[in-house]
Amino acid sequence: MSEGPERREARNGPVHRRGGIELLAGRKRVVVVGGGFGGIAAARALAGCDVDVVLVDRRNHHLFQPLLYQVATAVLAPADVSMPIRGMLRKQRNARVLLGEVRRVDVEDKEVHLEGPWGTDTLEYDWLVLAAGASHSYFGNAQWATRAPGLKTLDDALEIRRRVFLAYERAEWLRDPAARQRELTFVVVGAGPTGVELAGALAEISRRTLVEDFRNIDPTQARVLLLEGTDTVLRGYPDSLRESARRQLESLGVQVRFGAMVDDVDEQGVVLAPPPDAPEGTAGERIEAATVIWAAGVAASELGEQVPADRDRAGRVKVGADLSLPDHPEVFVIGDMAHVPGPEGEALPGVAQVAIQGGAHVGRCVRADLGGKPRAPFRYRDLGSMATIGRSKAICHVAGLKLTGFVAWLMWLFVHLMALVGYRNRVIVLAEWAWSYVTWQRGSRLIRTTADTPADQVLPG
Amino acid sequence: MSEGPERREARNGPVHRRGGIELLAGRKRVVVVGGGFGGIAAARALAGCDVDVVLVDRRNHHLFQPLLYQVATAVLAPADVSMPIRGMLRKQRNARVLLGEVRRVDVEDKEVHLEGPWGTDTLEYDWLVLAAGASHSYFGNAQWATRAPGLKTLDDALEIRRRVFLAYERAEWLRDPAARQRELTFVVVGAGPTGVELAGALAEISRRTLVEDFRNIDPTQARVLLLEGTDTVLRGYPDSLRESARRQLESLGVQVRFGAMVDDVDEQGVVLAPPPDAPEGTAGERIEAATVIWAAGVAASELGEQVPADRDRAGRVKVGADLSLPDHPEVFVIGDMAHVPGPEGEALPGVAQVAIQGGAHVGRCVRADLGGKPRAPFRYRDLGSMATIGRSKAICHVAGLKLTGFVAWLMWLFVHLMALVGYRNRVIVLAEWAWSYVTWQRGSRLIRTTADTPADQVLPG
Repeated sequence: MSEGPERREARNGPVHRRGGIELLAGRKRVVVVGGGFGGIAAARALAGCDVDVVLVDRRNHHLFQPLLYQVATAVLAPADVSMPIRGMLRKQRNARVLLGEVRRVDVEDKEVHLEGPWGTDTLEYDWLVLAAGASHSYFGNAQWATRAPGLKTLDDALEIRRRVFLAYERAEWLRDPAARQRELTFVVVGAGPTGVELAGALAEISRRTLVEDFRNIDPTQARVLLLEGTDTVLRGYPDSLRESARRQLESLGVQVRFGAMVDDVDEQGVVLAPPPDAPEGTAGERIEAATVIWAAGVAASELGEQVPADRDRAGRVKVGADLSLPDHPEVFVIGDMAHVPGPEGEALPGVAQVAIQGGAHVGRCVRADLGGKPRAPFRYRDLGSMATIGRSKAICHVAGLKLTGFVAWLMWLFVHLMALVGYRNRVIVLAEWAWSYVTWQRGSRLIRTTADTPADQVLPG
Repeated sequence: MSEGPERREARNGPVHRRGGIELLAGRKRVVVVGGGFGGIAAARALAGCDVDVVLVDRRNHHLFQPLLYQVATAVLAPADVSMPIRGMLRKQRNARVLLGEVRRVDVEDKEVHLEGPWGTDTLEYDWLVLAAGASHSYFGNAQWATRAPGLKTLDDALEIRRRVFLAYERAEWLRDPAARQRELTFVVVGAGPTGVELAGALAEISRRTLVEDFRNIDPTQARVLLLEGTDTVLRGYPDSLRESARRQLESLGVQVRFGAMVDDVDEQGVVLAPPPDAPEGTAGERIEAATVIWAAGVAASELGEQVPADRDRAGRVKVGADLSLPDHPEVFVIGDMAHVPGPEGEALPGVAQVAIQGGAHVGRCVRADLGGKPRAPFRYRDLGSMATIGRSKAICHVAGLKLTGFVAWLMWLFVHLMALVGYRNRVIVLAEWAWSYVTWQRGSRLIRTTADTPADQVLPG
């Protein structure tokens, strides 16, 4: 299967052998794809180890996803929830960072094909760690993407922010009451943690932040609808917490609609599927809304299709007990890309802790391999979960404790502040939060670009 | 000349009479075009006055231009140097804000034609204040705009930031020494305050911020060239300060080149004009550089062409002693759009203080008109000027005092911090500065979009 570098050069144009990176002779190489929670944890777990670590990401920054909704709702700036990957690995002398996108994985030749800011390249590996995450899924309706952006990247967040605040500007300008109401209707699809956080924040923007800012419209007349296909918000939490979350949302003015399946999304709003017991031919309810946000589903990175292994319906790669591929122990898949069976057989959820612990586990496996020892299986330790709804409103399920309201909210603030990378981000975010708490204002209320298509990549082309 | 609303409606489509804005009957209206220093000052100077103030801007935010270069060089985030205009005028009950772009001014009918986020509109006025600022000028070489972005808007700043940090990423990837050096060459054209600030910051990024971040390249090998057509930096300052500024720049590693006129800018770099004493046919020097930034000239907003008055070479409208048009005392032009003769006949410089004092003066004129009193002429009070070069490096000329180095820098910091609008921005900027001072790092080192064309407008289309 393998071909020499000359053959590859003839086919692909100039190839930098071993990736244009001057390596110490005889050192083995770990290539980590993705600088999210999993990839960073894997790279760090190899600090001081006798390998070269090359982390490849198509963006130059790590993103603290749990606070991304605060960028979309103007509390925080993009830089507050992100960090240059180079900066994070600056002190780790065996680690290198490459800005580039992995286009192809070749597990037979043990190499990945990259597209960088200055052409293509090939990178050989001894171990490969796939940690490229997930993006949102429209369940086969990709055409909804421009109408109902999801929230996975900074550009997504800025696009949502732009749409939300531009809707109020248009409403101020319009005279037709129906057109105004359409601008002032915000629909969030999906009542998982992201949907709940967004809906709560949108309600606060309408009820508090903008209340004095307009002269022709009354921003408090805005409607925020949270549509959920099942019969509950925040599936996976204990019953009492889910019920509390719904009540807290409604106290903010969010209209929560259960059993609401989206049939279509167009320029004017969304169309719901008719109720299951409706007579044949019944038209679904139509909700006129200028702003629709998608928080209903995720799909693993398509990079998973490049490796020989089974995948689940969400595209996640089914890995073995040590997080490697069944036939390729040198290839690991972690984080949102991996289907890891939990204690009760169901896949572990797509949260930061699963990715971080998976990355650390990969580090231990590589060290075991180097020492000629057997690998231990991956054991996930559930540190609890929490979701915020709005100011002084949250739910928390930690160590068997169930907390709601102000106490849960304080705990959420504290945990997220401490989990942020870097002293700077913590100080700035704390200052932003304190200011927002006192004033009800939001510090990043910019409407910036016209971009209709999210430009979420750093690389040209 | 005037036509009824019905005629206009037939011609333009639906028109919201008097701008879609429900006015108090009998009140006169002041329309302010532009939410920069001048426009905001004019609107605020009319607080409590018996007029309706409508401020129109095509962006939703006021921009604190003097710190914009810090966004371009990753110290500050966009939100730190901007503020929603609605928020700034929230408490002023006689003021309204409209997001829209003025397409046409009709001084005969006393109306402006707007394009807003939801169509077009017409707005009648009793007084008009044109404060739409300036953008960069390529002196007839508009094709250079994509190759050498200027620094006027937030999107400009983000585009420069993207180019600067992406150049290092490409250099890390490349092996050809010449190609690497081209990526690591940064050219700033024009040694006014913006050019000086940018060049100093680029040198610090190379010498300090990135010094440990790469493995294949040595960021300190980057070259920063500051090209100036005349024989001095910071024209207009006293000789000793200009000389000090040049020395401070060079101590940072900036190569300052005087008498360097740009003949061409292309994908690979810039071509200088041959020296004036060179023999006919001598080719100009070529400087290979991936990143070129334009800080060499400004041109007033084209809105100035819509009013009947003389303009200077930079497109600035020549106004009378009260800042109004000779034949239209109800039309004022202020800030970077206006050519206001200073005490020695030369036009006042395009700085914030001229715009702010002009706005305040307009407020006094309108009040005088309402009271039936004569208007006073505009008197500019020079509060001094200062420019920063880098950490602990600046020059200051205030009240006859000439300061350089650390003291000037501290004064620069203090004045700019205090001049920022809003408690939040001051706290956040102070925290960012403190962190950068301690660590030499830059908090907003994101490379974000692929956009090759700056998308600096908020409005669709």
